[in-house]
Amino acid sequence: MSSQSRPSGRASDQLRTITIERHYTRHAEGSVLIGFGDTRVLCTASVEDRVPPWLRGKGEGWVTAEYGMLPRATNTRMQREAARGGQGGRTMEIQRLIGRSLRACVDRQALGERVITLDCDVIQADGGTRTAAITGAYVALVDAVNLLMKRENLRRNPVVGAVAAVSVGIYQGVPVLDLDYAEDSNCDTDMNVVMNDGGGFIEVQGTAEGHAFRRDEMDALLGLAEKGIAELVAAQRAALELS
Amino acid sequence: MSSQSRPSGRASDQLRTITIERHYTRHAEGSVLIGFGDTRVLCTASVEDRVPPWLRGKGEGWVTAEYGMLPRATNTRMQREAARGGQGGRTMEIQRLIGRSLRACVDRQALGERVITLDCDVIQADGGTRTAAITGAYVALVDAVNLLMKRENLRRNPVVGAVAAVSVGIYQGVPVLDLDYAEDSNCDTDMNVVMNDGGGFIEVQGTAEGHAFRRDEMDALLGLAEKGIAELVAAQRAALELS
Amino acid sequence: MSSQSRPSGRASDQLRTITIERHYTRHAEGSVLIGFGDTRVLCTASVEDRVPPWLRGKGEGWVTAEYGMLPRATNTRMQREAARGGQGGRTMEIQRLIGRSLRACVDRQALGERVITLDCDVIQADGGTRTAAITGAYVALVDAVNLLMKRENLRRNPVVGAVAAVSVGIYQGVPVLDLDYAEDSNCDTDMNVVMNDGGGFIEVQGTAEGHAFRRDEMDALLGLAEKGIAELVAAQRAALELS
Amino acid sequence: MSSQSRPSGRASDQLRTITIERHYTRHAEGSVLIGFGDTRVLCTASVEDRVPPWLRGKGEGWVTAEYGMLPRATNTRMQREAARGGQGGRTMEIQRLIGRSLRACVDRQALGERVITLDCDVIQADGGTRTAAITGAYVALVDAVNLLMKRENLRRNPVVGAVAAVSVGIYQGVPVLDLDYAEDSNCDTDMNVVMNDGGGFIEVQGTAEGHAFRRDEMDALLGLAEKGIAELVAAQRAALELS
Amino acid sequence: MSSQSRPSGRASDQLRTITIERHYTRHAEGSVLIGFGDTRVLCTASVEDRVPPWLRGKGEGWVTAEYGMLPRATNTRMQREAARGGQGGRTMEIQRLIGRSLRACVDRQALGERVITLDCDVIQADGGTRTAAITGAYVALVDAVNLLMKRENLRRNPVVGAVAAVSVGIYQGVPVLDLDYAEDSNCDTDMNVVMNDGGGFIEVQGTAEGHAFRRDEMDALLGLAEKGIAELVAAQRAALELS
Amino acid sequence: MSSQSRPSGRASDQLRTITIERHYTRHAEGSVLIGFGDTRVLCTASVEDRVPPWLRGKGEGWVTAEYGMLPRATNTRMQREAARGGQGGRTMEIQRLIGRSLRACVDRQALGERVITLDCDVIQADGGTRTAAITGAYVALVDAVNLLMKRENLRRNPVVGAVAAVSVGIYQGVPVLDLDYAEDSNCDTDMNVVMNDGGGFIEVQGTAEGHAFRRDEMDALLGLAEKGIAELVAAQRAALELS
Repeated sequence: MSSQSRPSGRASDQLRTITIERHYTRHAEGSVLIGFGDTRVLCTASVEDRVPPWLRGKGEGWVTAEYGMLPRATNTRMQREAARGGQGGRTMEIQRLIGRSLRACVDRQALGERVITLDCDVIQADGGTRTAAITGAYVALVDAVNLLMKRENLRRNPVVGAVAAVSVGIYQGVPVLDLDYAEDSNCDTDMNVVMNDGGGFIEVQGTAEGHAFRRDEMDALLGLAEKGIAELVAAQRAALELS
Repeated sequence: MSSQSRPSGRASDQLRTITIERHYTRHAEGSVLIGFGDTRVLCTASVEDRVPPWLRGKGEGWVTAEYGMLPRATNTRMQREAARGGQGGRTMEIQRLIGRSLRACVDRQALGERVITLDCDVIQADGGTRTAAITGAYVALVDAVNLLMKRENLRRNPVVGAVAAVSVGIYQGVPVLDLDYAEDSNCDTDMNVVMNDGGGFIEVQGTAEGHAFRRDEMDALLGLAEKGIAELVAAQRAALELS
Repeated sequence: MSSQSRPSGRASDQLRTITIERHYTRHAEGSVLIGFGDTRVLCTASVEDRVPPWLRGKGEGWVTAEYGMLPRATNTRMQREAARGGQGGRTMEIQRLIGRSLRACVDRQALGERVITLDCDVIQADGGTRTAAITGAYVALVDAVNLLMKRENLRRNPVVGAVAAVSVGIYQGVPVLDLDYAEDSNCDTDMNVVMNDGGGFIEVQGTAEGHAFRRDEMDALLGLAEKGIAELVAAQRAALELS
Repeated sequence: MSSQSRPSGRASDQLRTITIERHYTRHAEGSVLIGFGDTRVLCTASVEDRVPPWLRGKGEGWVTAEYGMLPRATNTRMQREAARGGQGGRTMEIQRLIGRSLRACVDRQALGERVITLDCDVIQADGGTRTAAITGAYVALVDAVNLLMKRENLRRNPVVGAVAAVSVGIYQGVPVLDLDYAEDSNCDTDMNVVMNDGGGFIEVQGTAEGHAFRRDEMDALLGLAEKGIAELVAAQRAALELS
Repeated sequence: MSSQSRPSGRASDQLRTITIERHYTRHAEGSVLIGFGDTRVLCTASVEDRVPPWLRGKGEGWVTAEYGMLPRATNTRMQREAARGGQGGRTMEIQRLIGRSLRACVDRQALGERVITLDCDVIQADGGTRTAAITGAYVALVDAVNLLMKRENLRRNPVVGAVAAVSVGIYQGVPVLDLDYAEDSNCDTDMNVVMNDGGGFIEVQGTAEGHAFRRDEMDALLGLAEKGIAELVAAQRAALELS
Repeated sequence: MSSQSRPSGRASDQLRTITIERHYTRHAEGSVLIGFGDTRVLCTASVEDRVPPWLRGKGEGWVTAEYGMLPRATNTRMQREAARGGQGGRTMEIQRLIGRSLRACVDRQALGERVITLDCDVIQADGGTRTAAITGAYVALVDAVNLLMKRENLRRNPVVGAVAAVSVGIYQGVPVLDLDYAEDSNCDTDMNVVMNDGGGFIEVQGTAEGHAFRRDEMDALLGLAEKGIAELVAAQRAALELS
């Protein structure tokens, strides 16, 4: 694919501009505004000294996530879920994915009887909000855990490795990396991939929107995801190295 | 893997006994009780002459799904979702998956302004309820559409190809096909795969429960899924050939 | 009334074919699929070692019931109550009736601090779902209590006598027993009667759908109910005598 | 039974003092405060020029009821249903009963495409709130319909006959009429009976709280109900004769 | 303003007829039916030996309020909030105001670990329901606390001073006291004022419905409120002096 | 009051630093991030070509508001309202206030049959979120209306004047302007004042948290509010003059 065939002019294996702004708000133990191009998600990590009922007395902690979109993060205003009386299926699906992904890099014994809640709120949407949320939530998690380790004198770091996520898809017949809204709403196949910094897969969620995808297409998509996530992990690391 | 290491004694690439009982209840246009071993799901297809608001006047139809579990389908009683006041995140995630999967084999123009609702209710659970639901819902859908074609004299068959689903996973280090509950609750990786009868992928949803999975493990799992789904498609075809 | 005037051709005092299949699913302590003709209800009894808050520490147990209909148990699809966000008035009315009826044959002191929940889910509806549910739930309750007695070495059997239920009504001017849907939707008076095996009344719920009913009609209906319930109690006993 | 054995000292076949105050509030088309002893229920009838969706264009109307209790109508404060987020099972059961009972005396063709809503709100509870509600709602309905007939020049009176209700029960082994709270909370059997002014039964709802009741007890209860309802119908008539 | 320009013919600084009927219902510790002209609100005070979770073990109590309107308290029937599934914004706003107002005259240490709930239910509405509710709830509160002091032998009276409320507004350019519905629905500015018997302000909630109000108009309104509340406090005192 | 007695060191009549950033997000017709010190609220204005049912066909529009807080906008994490199943009383009270305030500066005939929704989402909270929301929503409203006027060629500007809001209160006995969280949580009296640019009052909501406030204190508070709002209106004007 010549790079000009993507609406954004990006090469097929090119991420959007990634921005990671730490300490974006001041109350949360971790607070990160992440940008994947025009997509902007505020990810906060909150530490609480409690565990869900089913973990009481077991000496281990929990990591969970909640996801929301401001009503006008999108092109047309969506009804506020709090006003509608509950979270919809898409929201639940996404926040369950974020929670599972981040738990994959946490040693819950080392965390102790605490809950870390990752709130991912989309300020502006342009495709890829869930992958941006996972990638940003990881940075917020690390900030929160570092604070906790200092404060509580933990013996072991509960964060084990890194986690990042990216979408890949087949747009006009060509596998591409990190779909924006213009691509996402017109692609044949859309796949969200969550990986760790060791190249292991944590989640793969692929959906054929138009025609079913072949095994070789799947292989190409996974290859793009591996490349993109390596770059995202590097961006996370760079952001975390700033004081 | 020696076959005795699976709790059920199955070979690693062996499905459970698959049973498909059509016309299980008499009111629905399609009604199928499907068994994947001890997992039993009642799948009904209901045809209604209406479309959702966003499709009015567009000359095409819709296919949607709802999923439920009877409270004592499982080992310990779960609270009834109707009594709790709404469907949980897991339920929503599953019924969205079933709906997307079945829409992948329906020509919505050929269907015309109608809705087909696939209700998948788990009578007894032993792992793999969502894959059994998709596989059974396809048979119910075909029965309903055949009835509709006779009744309404449709020009084109709205069902295009076949769809089936199976779970694969890594249990005690070995990739296995069609996990039952004993395996599912102890496996490292769990992947649900939905494919069509042409070998195309419709959905791939893989989750690392324990450690992240490598690319070669993913390849092995996809291979198992391809084998299993070919057998499931054959079982669907055999069931549909009975009058 | 000549037998041909009932849509089914039954005599006015004739029950539909009654089928009682025990151990229908494998997880519940009691699990019964009951059929009153084409009406099929799955009744499970679940035993839990807890009591509702208002009974804590009183040394007695509780019996409660929940009722549901699969969306396509009926001729036209009904909205799923879990999706609608709660149970409707009819559902609540029926499950309260089932609960009261079954509590009438349980010695709650003998049960001890346990809850037995009777889940009655209608797989296929053709009139009389609540009376089938009560009649089947009794059998599931007995199976669950027998298991409990063995397991926990109870000193006294908490089940005292038997309970069964049937509907009676006035169809085209004639009192008839065990209405099916064709009769139920066109009758003048509809009465649900719950009795024990000693001929005592536990619940009587009669409703004039068309014109008010006279005292002599009420007497005839109660007589039919007494006959029908004696036969149902015999069918319960026969089913329970099988190993 | 000697009259002194009822907590109130009433004879076994004696109603409490019945008071019916019409035009209690000024906005509703019909507004009645009814007292059965210390039980006080405000019944309003509201006429609206609309019908429920399923009746549109059929030329007939609808009568429905809603029931509520003020939180401190009872001895201990109950949670407000609006605050709890919905109506409970008991409330739904009662308002469905009131609605069915009043529809039994309305010619819905004569009413035309209108809805009459009977709101029955318990100001003070001392047993028998649902029977007081039905008896009072009838008077409110007549007032509303008379106003409507004048205003809209209806050709036919939509109210056909009269409807009243009373509870009967077995208290300390003796059948008694019109149970107050002291009796209701300690009785063996409780039956609510709704009848018309021609002596026909509209609803019979009997529940054995303690032991099951025998056929002869049922006959005695029905006899008491017939006597009590005749007196209630007379009280309704007397109240309606006042200008 | 000449008195005839108010729809009711009242002088601009004239309250409606105030009626306060204590012991209106018999179960509540305090029960008052208050009338501000045709507005009638039933205010009950319920004492419970519990505190909300956040006050446990602190040795102090809580005062809270709930507000409701009977569906036909108003000119056209409103949907019942319990049936609609929750309290609306207006209801919550009003009950929060009532709660804050009454807490202003209660010494929560002296009350001890108890909750007093003030239920204010509008039987008939003609403007000013929230101010009538506050004024009546105070009387119910005093009755309840007096009973509690006798029963529990409290050392200190938890009620400190008196609280009353009135609305003021600008109707056709003239500041007026105690708006009825005819004025309220056509006024330019509407202000609810809650004061204590020492002339201190507890709440001031003014809203410009039409044009914004000037500082001198605000001053005139506050002056009217001071006059009206002095009269309401006197009416409360007179009512409480009756045995 | 010497300036050092406020926790922030501000003079008693000094606002916090006010920042107004227009075009903060790109989808909404108006999008403003407003800061009152550390309080940061994102205010978007969305224009839709529809009106609420009660305004259909009347040729006028509507302005409404919704308010939310991100879960970790505050010092301790609050439960997400969408997850809890609905908006709480405080949220409803605030969004009703914002809506009324902004409607006060809109000519709804000039707007035509359109709805403008003002979404005010608190990104970071440090007291005064509702006054910041109103002040920022006005700027977003002007941006949205200016765009609308250009796009739709409106004849008349629907925005009439300006609206801003500020809190005032009595902190440690001294009237102060624009309370931050440290003051707000410890003050005796808290008043929110909404005014227009002509010095007229739109809303005054004062609450005595500790002791009731005197008339002279009220006068001092209103004076502070007038000064503060004049400065806020100037800040709005300055922000709007930037292209």
